[in-house]
Amino acid sequence: MFSNVHIVLVNTSHPGNIGSTARAMKTMGFKKLLLVNPKEFPSSQSDALAVGCVDVLKKAKVFSNLSDAVAGANINIGLSARTRKASIPILSVDECVNYVLLNKNLKCNIIFGNESSGLSNSDLLKCDYMVSIPTYKDYSSLNLSAAVQLITYEFYKNTKTHISSSKKPITHATAKEKNYFIDTLITLMKETKFISVKNSKSLTKKIHILFNKTNLETDEVNMLLGMLNSIHKKLNK
Amino acid sequence: MFSNVHIVLVNTSHPGNIGSTARAMKTMGFKKLLLVNPKEFPSSQSDALAVGCVDVLKKAKVFSNLSDAVAGANINIGLSARTRKASIPILSVDECVNYVLLNKNLKCNIIFGNESSGLSNSDLLKCDYMVSIPTYKDYSSLNLSAAVQLITYEFYKNTKTHISSSKKPITHATAKEKNYFIDTLITLMKETKFISVKNSKSLTKKIHILFNKTNLETDEVNMLLGMLNSIHKKLNK
Repeated sequence: MFSNVHIVLVNTSHPGNIGSTARAMKTMGFKKLLLVNPKEFPSSQSDALAVGCVDVLKKAKVFSNLSDAVAGANINIGLSARTRKASIPILSVDECVNYVLLNKNLKCNIIFGNESSGLSNSDLLKCDYMVSIPTYKDYSSLNLSAAVQLITYEFYKNTKTHISSSKKPITHATAKEKNYFIDTLITLMKETKFISVKNSKSLTKKIHILFNKTNLETDEVNMLLGMLNSIHKKLNK
Repeated sequence: MFSNVHIVLVNTSHPGNIGSTARAMKTMGFKKLLLVNPKEFPSSQSDALAVGCVDVLKKAKVFSNLSDAVAGANINIGLSARTRKASIPILSVDECVNYVLLNKNLKCNIIFGNESSGLSNSDLLKCDYMVSIPTYKDYSSLNLSAAVQLITYEFYKNTKTHISSSKKPITHATAKEKNYFIDTLITLMKETKFISVKNSKSLTKKIHILFNKTNLETDEVNMLLGMLNSIHKKLNK
Protein backbone atom coordinates (compact mmCIF):
# COMPACT_ATOMS: atom_id res chain seq x y z
CA MET A 1 0.00 0.00 0.00
CA PHE A 2 2.67 2.52 1.05
CA SER A 3 5.20 1.14 -1.39
CA ASN A 4 7.33 4.30 -1.45
CA VAL A 5 7.73 4.50 2.33
CA HIS A 6 10.25 2.53 4.37
CA ILE A 7 10.24 2.21 8.13
CA VAL A 8 13.85 2.30 9.36
CA LEU A 9 14.88 1.09 12.82
CA VAL A 10 18.36 2.14 13.95
CA ASN A 11 20.42 0.29 16.59
CA THR A 12 17.44 -1.62 17.98
CA SER A 13 18.41 -3.37 21.24
CA HIS A 14 15.47 -5.72 21.77
CA PRO A 15 14.58 -8.16 18.99
CA GLY A 16 11.02 -8.32 20.35
CA ASN A 17 10.57 -4.68 19.35
CA ILE A 18 11.44 -5.53 15.76
CA GLY A 19 8.66 -8.12 15.75
CA SER A 20 6.16 -5.72 17.34
CA THR A 21 7.14 -3.08 14.80
CA ALA A 22 6.45 -5.47 11.91
CA ARG A 23 2.99 -6.13 13.36
CA ALA A 24 2.30 -2.43 13.94
CA MET A 25 3.35 -1.63 10.36
CA LYS A 26 1.26 -4.32 8.76
CA THR A 27 -1.94 -3.33 10.57
CA MET A 28 -1.64 0.01 8.77
CA GLY A 29 -0.61 -1.31 5.35
CA PHE A 30 3.18 -0.85 5.58
CA LYS A 31 5.45 -3.70 4.56
CA LYS A 32 8.94 -2.30 3.92
CA LEU A 33 11.29 -2.49 6.89
CA LEU A 34 14.97 -1.51 6.99
CA LEU A 35 17.12 -2.43 9.98
CA VAL A 36 20.35 -0.59 10.72
CA ASN A 37 22.75 -2.47 12.95
CA PRO A 38 20.16 -4.41 15.01
CA LYS A 39 21.57 -6.09 18.11
CA GLU A 40 19.96 -9.42 17.23
CA PHE A 41 18.30 -10.29 13.93
CA PRO A 42 16.86 -12.62 12.78
CA SER A 43 15.62 -13.77 16.16
CA SER A 44 12.99 -16.13 17.56
CA GLN A 45 11.78 -13.26 19.76
CA SER A 46 11.14 -11.06 16.74
CA ASP A 47 9.24 -13.87 15.05
CA ALA A 48 7.16 -14.55 18.16
CA LEU A 49 5.95 -10.97 18.40
CA ALA A 50 5.34 -10.56 14.68
CA VAL A 51 2.07 -12.48 14.89
CA GLY A 52 1.11 -13.12 11.26
CA CYS A 53 3.78 -10.73 9.97
CA VAL A 54 6.83 -12.90 9.54
CA ASP A 55 6.66 -11.95 5.83
CA VAL A 56 7.61 -8.37 6.78
CA LEU A 57 10.59 -9.64 8.80
CA LYS A 58 11.72 -12.01 6.05
CA LYS A 59 11.80 -9.17 3.51
CA ALA A 60 13.49 -6.72 5.89
CA LYS A 61 16.82 -5.38 4.68
CA VAL A 62 19.71 -5.10 7.12
CA PHE A 63 22.37 -2.37 6.89
CA SER A 64 25.51 -1.85 8.95
CA ASN A 65 25.16 1.94 9.00
CA LEU A 66 22.51 4.62 8.52
CA SER A 67 24.28 6.31 5.60
CA ASP A 68 23.80 3.23 3.43
CA ALA A 69 20.18 2.86 4.51
CA VAL A 70 19.26 6.46 3.66
CA ALA A 71 21.27 6.70 0.45
CA GLY A 72 18.53 5.65 -1.95
CA ALA A 73 15.74 7.79 -0.50
CA ASN A 74 14.61 11.25 -1.55
CA ILE A 75 13.27 12.25 1.84
CA ASN A 76 14.61 11.08 5.19
CA ILE A 77 12.49 11.91 8.23
CA GLY A 78 13.81 11.19 11.73
CA LEU A 79 11.66 10.72 14.82
CA SER A 80 12.98 12.45 17.91
CA ALA A 81 11.66 13.68 21.22
CA ARG A 82 14.43 16.27 21.49
CA THR A 83 13.02 19.06 19.36
CA ARG A 84 14.28 21.88 21.54
CA LYS A 85 17.83 21.48 20.38
CA ALA A 86 16.66 20.89 16.83
CA SER A 87 18.86 22.29 14.16
CA ILE A 88 16.90 20.73 11.31
CA PRO A 89 13.36 21.65 10.27
CA ILE A 90 10.62 20.20 12.45
CA LEU A 91 7.40 18.88 11.03
CA SER A 92 4.32 18.07 13.05
CA VAL A 93 3.02 14.54 12.57
CA ASP A 94 0.25 15.89 10.31
CA GLU A 95 2.68 17.95 8.24
CA CYS A 96 4.93 14.92 7.84
CA VAL A 97 2.07 12.70 6.71
CA ASN A 98 0.71 15.28 4.27
CA TYR A 99 4.14 15.96 2.81
CA VAL A 100 4.82 12.30 2.11
CA LEU A 101 1.31 11.59 0.83
CA LEU A 102 1.51 14.54 -1.55
CA ASN A 103 4.80 13.31 -2.98
CA LYS A 104 4.06 9.69 -3.80
CA ASN A 105 6.74 9.68 -6.49
CA LEU A 106 9.43 10.14 -3.84
CA LYS A 107 11.09 7.41 -1.84
CA CYS A 108 10.78 8.20 1.80
CA ASN A 109 12.37 6.78 4.97
CA ILE A 110 10.78 7.24 8.38
CA ILE A 111 13.61 6.66 10.83
CA PHE A 112 13.33 5.54 14.47
CA GLY A 113 16.31 5.40 16.86
CA ASN A 114 17.39 3.15 19.69
CA GLU A 115 14.92 2.34 22.52
CA SER A 116 16.84 4.23 25.20
CA SER A 117 18.78 6.90 23.39
CA GLY A 118 16.77 7.61 20.23
CA LEU A 119 18.57 8.95 17.18
CA SER A 120 22.01 10.43 17.76
CA ASN A 121 22.83 13.96 16.65
CA SER A 122 24.88 12.63 13.76
CA ASP A 123 21.97 10.38 12.73
CA LEU A 124 19.65 13.40 12.76
CA LEU A 125 22.01 15.27 10.44
CA LYS A 126 21.29 12.59 7.84
CA CYS A 127 17.61 13.56 8.02
CA ASP A 128 15.88 16.26 6.01
CA TYR A 129 13.19 16.71 8.63
CA MET A 130 12.51 15.80 12.20
CA VAL A 131 9.17 14.76 13.63
CA SER A 132 8.18 14.57 17.27
CA ILE A 133 5.13 12.66 18.46
CA PRO A 134 3.23 14.71 21.03
CA THR A 135 3.39 13.09 24.46
CA TYR A 136 2.43 13.99 28.00
CA LYS A 137 4.97 16.33 29.55
CA ASP A 138 5.56 14.26 32.68
CA TYR A 139 6.22 10.98 30.89
CA SER A 140 7.26 10.84 27.27
CA SER A 141 8.77 7.35 27.12
CA LEU A 142 6.97 5.92 24.10
CA ASN A 143 7.75 2.30 23.34
CA LEU A 144 9.50 1.92 19.97
CA SER A 145 6.79 -0.14 18.27
CA ALA A 146 4.14 2.14 19.80
CA ALA A 147 5.81 5.09 18.08
CA VAL A 148 5.81 3.18 14.79
CA GLN A 149 2.16 2.28 15.38
CA LEU A 150 1.17 5.92 15.87
CA ILE A 151 2.98 7.20 12.79
CA THR A 152 1.75 4.43 10.49
CA TYR A 153 -1.79 4.88 11.84
CA GLU A 154 -1.67 8.58 10.97
CA PHE A 155 -0.59 7.67 7.44
CA TYR A 156 -3.34 5.10 7.05
CA LYS A 157 -5.99 7.35 8.55
CA ASN A 158 -5.03 10.23 6.28
CA THR A 159 -4.83 8.13 3.13
CA LYS A 160 -8.45 7.23 3.55
CA THR A 161 -9.48 10.84 3.22
CA HIS A 162 -6.58 12.22 1.25
CA ILE A 163 -7.24 13.85 -2.07
CA SER A 164 -4.41 13.64 -4.53
CA SER A 165 -3.19 17.14 -5.26
CA SER A 166 -2.22 18.71 -8.52
CA LYS A 167 1.23 19.76 -7.34
CA LYS A 168 3.77 19.01 -10.02
CA PRO A 169 5.97 16.04 -9.24
CA ILE A 170 9.46 17.02 -8.11
CA THR A 171 12.51 15.01 -8.99
CA HIS A 172 14.14 15.22 -5.59
CA ALA A 173 17.79 14.37 -5.44
CA THR A 174 18.62 11.19 -3.57
CA ALA A 175 20.52 11.45 -0.30
CA LYS A 176 23.51 9.92 -2.09
CA GLU A 177 23.55 12.64 -4.75
CA LYS A 178 23.11 15.40 -2.21
CA ASN A 179 25.80 14.05 0.12
CA TYR A 180 28.27 13.71 -2.75
CA PHE A 181 27.83 17.41 -3.45
CA ILE A 182 28.19 18.31 0.23
CA ASP A 183 31.36 16.22 0.54
CA THR A 184 32.82 17.86 -2.56
CA LEU A 185 32.00 21.32 -1.21
CA ILE A 186 33.61 20.52 2.15
CA THR A 187 36.77 19.27 0.44
CA LEU A 188 37.00 22.52 -1.54
CA MET A 189 36.39 24.62 1.56
CA LYS A 190 39.28 22.86 3.28
CA GLU A 191 41.45 23.66 0.29
CA THR A 192 40.53 27.35 0.50
CA LYS A 193 41.06 27.23 4.29
CA PHE A 194 37.46 28.32 4.95
CA ILE A 195 37.14 25.12 6.93
CA SER A 196 39.92 24.56 9.44
CA VAL A 197 40.51 21.86 12.06
CA LYS A 198 39.04 24.22 14.63
CA ASN A 199 35.74 25.06 12.95
CA SER A 200 35.33 21.85 10.95
CA LYS A 201 32.67 20.27 13.13
CA SER A 202 30.35 23.24 13.41
CA LEU A 203 30.68 24.33 9.77
CA THR A 204 30.15 20.81 8.48
CA LYS A 205 26.97 20.66 10.52
CA LYS A 206 25.75 24.05 9.26
CA ILE A 207 26.41 23.07 5.65
CA HIS A 208 24.45 19.85 6.07
CA ILE A 209 21.53 21.67 7.64
CA LEU A 210 21.47 24.31 4.91
CA PHE A 211 21.40 21.85 2.03
CA ASN A 212 19.15 19.32 3.75
CA LYS A 213 16.38 21.85 4.07
CA THR A 214 16.65 22.96 0.47
CA ASN A 215 14.83 19.97 -1.08
CA LEU A 216 17.42 19.91 -3.83
CA GLU A 217 16.42 18.46 -7.16
CA THR A 218 18.82 16.25 -9.10
CA ASP A 219 19.28 19.01 -11.72
CA GLU A 220 20.19 21.48 -9.02
CA VAL A 221 22.74 19.15 -7.46
CA ASN A 222 24.31 18.78 -10.88
CA MET A 223 24.42 22.55 -11.31
CA LEU A 224 26.06 23.01 -7.91
CA LEU A 225 28.61 20.30 -8.74
CA GLY A 226 29.32 22.08 -12.02
CA MET A 227 30.06 25.26 -10.06
CA LEU A 228 32.47 23.47 -7.75
CA ASN A 229 34.13 21.81 -10.70
CA SER A 230 34.66 25.16 -12.45
CA ILE A 231 36.26 26.58 -9.30
CA HIS A 232 38.45 23.51 -8.94
CA LYS A 233 39.70 23.84 -12.51
CA LYS A 234 40.43 27.54 -12.13
CA LEU A 235 42.34 26.93 -8.88
CA ASN A 236 44.52 24.26 -10.44
CA LYS A 237 45.36 26.11 -13.64
CA MET B 1 -4.90 14.99 33.06
CA PHE B 2 -7.84 12.88 31.82
CA SER B 3 -9.16 12.37 35.31
CA ASN B 4 -12.68 11.54 34.12
CA VAL B 5 -11.60 8.79 31.72
CA HIS B 6 -10.79 5.19 32.70
CA ILE B 7 -9.11 2.65 30.48
CA VAL B 8 -10.72 -0.76 31.05
CA LEU B 9 -9.08 -4.04 30.02
CA VAL B 10 -11.38 -7.08 29.97
CA ASN B 11 -10.16 -10.72 30.28
CA THR B 12 -6.55 -9.87 29.44
CA SER B 13 -4.54 -13.08 28.86
CA HIS B 14 -0.98 -11.78 28.87
CA PRO B 15 0.20 -9.82 31.91
CA GLY B 16 2.86 -8.16 29.72
CA ASN B 17 0.07 -6.42 27.83
CA ILE B 18 -1.19 -4.87 31.06
CA GLY B 19 2.25 -3.39 31.66
CA SER B 20 2.53 -2.12 28.06
CA THR B 21 -0.94 -0.61 28.38
CA ALA B 22 0.07 1.28 31.53
CA ARG B 23 3.04 2.70 29.65
CA ALA B 24 0.96 3.60 26.59
CA MET B 25 -1.60 5.36 28.81
CA LYS B 26 0.90 7.36 30.76
CA THR B 27 2.69 8.70 27.67
CA MET B 28 -0.61 10.37 26.79
CA GLY B 29 -1.54 11.58 30.25
CA PHE B 30 -3.92 8.78 31.31
CA LYS B 31 -3.51 7.22 34.75
CA LYS B 32 -6.72 5.40 35.63
CA LEU B 33 -6.76 1.72 34.77
CA LEU B 34 -9.48 -0.81 35.53
CA LEU B 35 -8.88 -4.54 35.04
CA VAL B 36 -11.74 -6.97 34.62
CA ASN B 37 -10.86 -10.58 35.36
CA PRO B 38 -7.20 -10.48 34.26
CA LYS B 39 -5.55 -13.90 33.94
CA GLU B 40 -2.58 -12.84 36.04
CA PHE B 41 -2.30 -9.64 38.09
CA PRO B 42 -0.22 -8.33 39.76
CA SER B 43 2.64 -9.88 37.84
CA SER B 44 6.37 -9.40 37.41
CA GLN B 45 5.81 -9.37 33.63
CA SER B 46 3.39 -6.45 33.91
CA ASP B 47 5.85 -4.57 36.08
CA ALA B 48 8.73 -5.24 33.68
CA LEU B 49 6.88 -3.76 30.71
CA ALA B 50 5.48 -0.79 32.62
CA VAL B 51 8.81 1.05 32.44
CA GLY B 52 8.41 3.98 34.82
CA CYS B 53 4.66 3.40 35.15
CA VAL B 54 4.36 1.01 38.06
CA ASP B 55 2.34 3.77 39.75
CA VAL B 56 -0.45 3.21 37.21
CA LEU B 57 -0.42 -0.53 37.92
CA LYS B 58 -0.38 -0.04 41.68
CA LYS B 59 -3.47 2.17 41.52
CA ALA B 60 -5.31 -0.10 39.04
CA LYS B 61 -8.63 -1.44 40.30
CA VAL B 62 -9.48 -5.08 39.68
CA PHE B 63 -13.07 -6.30 39.10
CA SER B 64 -14.37 -9.80 38.65
CA ASN B 65 -16.92 -8.80 36.00
CA LEU B 66 -17.57 -6.00 33.52
CA SER B 67 -20.93 -5.03 35.03
CA ASP B 68 -19.27 -3.91 38.24
CA ALA B 69 -16.53 -2.06 36.34
CA VAL B 70 -18.94 -0.06 34.18
CA ALA B 71 -21.46 0.66 36.95
CA GLY B 72 -19.98 3.97 38.11
CA ALA B 73 -19.50 5.53 34.68
CA ASN B 74 -21.78 7.83 32.68
CA ILE B 75 -20.52 6.73 29.27
CA ASN B 76 -19.13 3.31 28.38
CA ILE B 77 -17.42 2.99 25.03
CA GLY B 78 -16.28 -0.42 23.74
CA LEU B 79 -13.54 -1.00 21.19
CA SER B 80 -14.30 -3.62 18.58
CA ALA B 81 -13.18 -4.58 15.10
CA ARG B 82 -16.56 -6.23 14.40
CA THR B 83 -18.66 -3.22 13.52
CA ARG B 84 -20.72 -5.01 10.88
CA LYS B 85 -22.75 -6.93 13.40
CA ALA B 86 -23.05 -3.89 15.61
CA SER B 87 -26.25 -3.55 17.50
CA ILE B 88 -25.16 -0.40 19.32
CA PRO B 89 -24.31 3.02 17.89
CA ILE B 90 -20.89 3.26 16.24
CA LEU B 91 -18.62 6.28 16.67
CA SER B 92 -15.52 7.00 14.65
CA VAL B 93 -12.36 7.53 16.71
CA ASP B 94 -12.67 11.29 16.18
CA GLU B 95 -16.33 11.32 17.18
CA CYS B 96 -15.53 9.32 20.30
CA VAL B 97 -12.72 11.66 21.33
CA ASN B 98 -14.78 14.78 20.67
CA TYR B 99 -17.74 13.40 22.55
CA VAL B 100 -15.72 12.61 25.65
CA LEU B 101 -13.71 15.83 25.55
CA LEU B 102 -16.90 17.88 25.23
CA ASN B 103 -18.38 16.16 28.27
CA LYS B 104 -15.68 16.51 30.88
CA ASN B 105 -18.21 16.40 33.67
CA LEU B 106 -19.08 12.82 32.77
CA LYS B 107 -17.21 9.74 33.89
CA CYS B 108 -16.19 7.70 30.91
CA ASN B 109 -14.83 4.17 30.40
CA ILE B 110 -12.98 3.16 27.25
CA ILE B 111 -13.18 -0.63 27.17
CA PHE B 112 -10.80 -3.06 25.43
CA GLY B 113 -11.46 -6.81 25.14
CA ASN B 114 -9.32 -9.95 25.20
CA GLU B 115 -6.23 -10.17 22.93
CA SER B 116 -7.66 -12.93 20.72
CA SER B 117 -11.41 -12.59 20.90
CA GLY B 118 -12.02 -8.91 21.70
CA LEU B 119 -15.18 -7.92 23.54
CA SER B 120 -17.94 -10.51 23.57
CA ASN B 121 -21.42 -9.64 22.32
CA SER B 122 -22.69 -9.53 25.89
CA ASP B 123 -19.81 -7.20 26.84
CA LEU B 124 -20.69 -4.90 23.93
CA LEU B 125 -24.27 -4.73 25.15
CA LYS B 126 -22.97 -3.08 28.32
CA CYS B 127 -21.54 -0.28 26.17
CA ASP B 128 -23.33 2.87 25.07
CA TYR B 129 -21.18 3.21 21.98
CA MET B 130 -18.77 1.16 19.97
CA VAL B 131 -15.57 2.41 18.32
CA SER B 132 -13.46 0.72 15.69
CA ILE B 133 -9.87 1.73 14.95
CA PRO B 134 -9.27 1.87 11.18
CA THR B 135 -6.80 -0.83 10.07
CA TYR B 136 -5.52 -2.24 6.79
CA LYS B 137 -8.05 -4.61 5.25
CA ASP B 138 -5.64 -7.54 4.82
CA TYR B 139 -4.34 -7.51 8.39
CA SER B 140 -6.24 -5.95 11.24
CA SER B 141 -4.64 -7.67 14.22
CA LEU B 142 -3.77 -4.70 16.42
CA ASN B 143 -1.87 -5.52 19.58
CA LEU B 144 -3.90 -4.67 22.71
CA SER B 145 -1.54 -2.03 24.09
CA ALA B 146 -1.12 -0.62 20.56
CA ALA B 147 -4.89 -0.08 20.40
CA VAL B 148 -4.77 1.67 23.79
CA GLN B 149 -1.83 3.73 22.54
CA LEU B 150 -3.75 4.89 19.45
CA ILE B 151 -6.91 5.86 21.32
CA THR B 152 -5.09 7.68 24.13
CA TYR B 153 -2.91 9.45 21.55
CA GLU B 154 -6.02 10.72 19.76
CA PHE B 155 -7.32 12.08 23.06
CA TYR B 156 -4.05 13.76 23.89
CA LYS B 157 -3.57 15.14 20.38
CA ASN B 158 -7.03 16.65 20.35
CA THR B 159 -6.62 18.20 23.76
CA LYS B 160 -3.48 19.91 22.64
CA THR B 161 -4.93 22.60 20.44
CA HIS B 162 -2.05 24.88 21.19
CA ILE B 163 0.88 25.22 18.87
CA SER B 164 4.12 23.45 19.69
CA SER B 165 6.24 25.93 21.59
CA SER B 166 9.56 24.27 20.89
CA LYS B 167 10.15 25.77 17.48
CA LYS B 168 13.03 28.19 17.75
CA PRO B 169 12.55 31.58 16.11
CA ILE B 170 14.32 31.82 12.78
CA THR B 171 16.03 34.98 11.65
CA HIS B 172 15.25 34.85 7.95
CA ALA B 173 17.69 36.66 5.77
CA THR B 174 16.39 39.78 4.06
CA ALA B 175 16.01 39.77 0.30
CA LYS B 176 18.86 42.30 0.17
CA GLU B 177 21.23 39.96 2.04
CA LYS B 178 20.24 37.00 -0.09
CA ASN B 179 20.56 38.84 -3.37
CA TYR B 180 23.96 40.20 -2.42
CA PHE B 181 25.13 36.62 -1.97
CA ILE B 182 23.56 35.52 -5.26
CA ASP B 183 25.18 38.41 -7.14
CA THR B 184 28.57 37.58 -5.62
CA LEU B 185 28.13 33.93 -6.59
CA ILE B 186 27.21 34.85 -10.16
CA THR B 187 30.25 37.13 -10.47
CA LEU B 188 32.50 34.32 -9.30
CA MET B 189 30.86 31.84 -11.66
CA LYS B 190 31.54 34.19 -14.56
CA GLU B 191 35.17 34.36 -13.46
CA THR B 192 35.42 30.56 -13.46
CA LYS B 193 33.61 30.45 -16.82
CA PHE B 194 30.81 28.31 -15.39
CA ILE B 195 28.48 31.07 -16.52
CA SER B 196 28.99 32.19 -20.10
CA VAL B 197 27.14 34.68 -22.28
CA LYS B 198 25.23 31.78 -23.78
CA ASN B 199 23.91 30.15 -20.60
CA SER B 200 23.82 33.24 -18.41
CA LYS B 201 20.09 33.80 -18.47
CA SER B 202 18.99 30.25 -17.68
CA LEU B 203 21.67 29.64 -15.01
CA THR B 204 20.98 32.93 -13.28
CA LYS B 205 17.34 31.97 -13.09
CA LYS B 206 18.12 28.52 -11.72
CA ILE B 207 20.43 29.92 -9.06
CA HIS B 208 17.75 32.36 -7.93
CA ILE B 209 15.13 29.62 -7.74
CA LEU B 210 17.44 27.36 -5.75
CA PHE B 211 18.35 29.92 -3.10
CA ASN B 212 14.90 31.48 -2.96
CA LYS B 213 13.31 28.23 -1.89
CA THR B 214 15.91 27.61 0.81
CA ASN B 215 14.54 30.10 3.35
CA LEU B 216 18.09 31.18 4.13
CA GLU B 217 18.85 32.58 7.54
CA THR B 218 21.15 35.59 7.95
CA ASP B 219 23.79 33.36 9.54
CA GLU B 220 23.66 31.03 6.58
CA VAL B 221 24.02 33.85 4.06
CA ASN B 222 27.10 35.00 5.96
CA MET B 223 28.53 31.48 5.89
CA LEU B 224 27.96 31.21 2.14
CA LEU B 225 29.58 34.63 1.61
CA GLY B 226 32.53 33.46 3.69
CA MET B 227 32.90 30.47 1.36
CA LEU B 228 32.89 32.67 -1.74
CA ASN B 229 35.38 35.05 -0.15
CA SER B 230 37.75 32.17 0.67
CA ILE B 231 37.57 31.00 -2.96
CA HIS B 232 38.14 34.54 -4.22
CA LYS B 233 41.25 34.92 -2.07
CA LYS B 234 42.68 31.60 -3.17
CA LEU B 235 42.10 32.43 -6.86
CA ASN B 236 43.84 35.79 -6.58
CA LYS B 237 46.89 34.62 -4.66
